[in-house]
Amino acid sequence: MDQVKMGTRVTPCPMPVTLVGTKVEGRVNFMAVAWIARVNNKPPIWGAGIAKRHFTMKGIHENREFSINFPTAEMITETDYCGLGSGSKIDKSDVFDVFYGALEGAPMIAGCPLAIECRVHDVVDMPTNYLVLGEVVEAYSEERFLTDDRLDIKKANPVVLTMPDNRYWTVGEHVADAWEAGKYFRP
Amino acid sequence: MDQVKMGTRVTPCPMPVTLVGTKVEGRVNFMAVAWIARVNNKPPIWGAGIAKRHFTMKGIHENREFSINFPTAEMITETDYCGLGSGSKIDKSDVFDVFYGALEGAPMIAGCPLAIECRVHDVVDMPTNYLVLGEVVEAYSEERFLTDDRLDIKKANPVVLTMPDNRYWTVGEHVADAWEAGKYFRP
Repeated sequence: MDQVKMGTRVTPCPMPVTLVGTKVEGRVNFMAVAWIARVNNKPPIWGAGIAKRHFTMKGIHENREFSINFPTAEMITETDYCGLGSGSKIDKSDVFDVFYGALEGAPMIAGCPLAIECRVHDVVDMPTNYLVLGEVVEAYSEERFLTDDRLDIKKANPVVLTMPDNRYWTVGEHVADAWEAGKYFRP
Repeated sequence: MDQVKMGTRVTPCPMPVTLVGTKVEGRVNFMAVAWIARVNNKPPIWGAGIAKRHFTMKGIHENREFSINFPTAEMITETDYCGLGSGSKIDKSDVFDVFYGALEGAPMIAGCPLAIECRVHDVVDMPTNYLVLGEVVEAYSEERFLTDDRLDIKKANPVVLTMPDNRYWTVGEHVADAWEAGKYFRP
C-alpha cells in the first residue's frame, strides 16, 4: 500500500461555498460558511458547523432564524470579503442586495441561484463549534438560473472551496448520472 | 425582485461525493453519501446525515467506527453502484481494494485521494436520519495525489453531485484564492 498519512485536520474535498445570513442586533450580516450539509430528509434539515465565538451565532441565538445562500462565481470577491472580517467589526449589511421570504430574521441575497430560509431546529453544542440545525421554510432561485423549472448547475455557476490550498473553483464537466451509472456494474 | 420559490426539498449546490465505509456483522460495506460536512474545528469532527433504515447504521451502532472516502472521477461507476443497492441485499465487500489504519471497524478504499477513519463522537437522533458525528483518527492519501505534500485537487479529481438533476461533475477552473480575493473589496 502507498498510503500517506495526512493528519487529522483535513476537510471535505471539495466543499460548497455559502453565505449564512442573519440579523444581529437588528443589522443584516453575512458570514462565509463551507462546513455545511443537508442532514435530514423529512422534514428537510441542514446543519452548519459555526465557531462559537462568531458574530453570526449571536443572531442565530437571538432570532432562531437564518439563511443559507449559494453565490455565483461572479460574486466571489464579495463572498470572500464576508469571510475575512467579523460582523462585530465591519458592517456587511450593504455588500449584497437583500430580500426576505417568510422569516424576518433570515435575510437572503438577491442574485444567488439558491437561497434558503431556515428556522432553528436545534443547536448541538460541540467542543469549539455549534452545529446549527435549521429546518428549511422555503428555498428561492431566479428564472435565469433554471432550465425546465429546475436549478441548472451551468447557469447557477456556484463555487466550491478546497483546503489547505485555500482555493475557490467552479464546477467542471459532467461525469455521469447518479443512481444510473452503477446500474450495470457488478464487482 | 425576480425570486422563484423552489420548495423545501433542495440540496447543497453542489455536494461532495463520498463513500462511507463500515463493517456490518463482520463484512465490509460501502455506502454513497453526499450529505456530509466537517462540523467541528478542535478536535476535527465530521457529520453525516444517514437515513435510519440504512444497513450502514448497523455497522456504526455495532462498532462505533466508520470511514469517509473521496473517490476520483475514474471510480464513479463503482461509487454509484454503492449508492444503488443496500448492503443487506448485495455484498459490496469486493467492489474496492480495502486498507485499514488504526480502526478495525473503519475499512478504507485504496486509490482514493482522501480517506479518513473516524471514531463515533455522537449520534444525533433526527426525524428520519441519524446525524452521525465522527472524530477523525487519521486521514490518508497517496503520493500521486499530492503536490508539495498537500492534496492537489487537479490530481485528486474528486466528484460533486447536484440534485434534482442527479448528475456527477468534476471540479472545474480556479476562480480565486480564499481569505485573499476579498481583501481589497469595500462595499
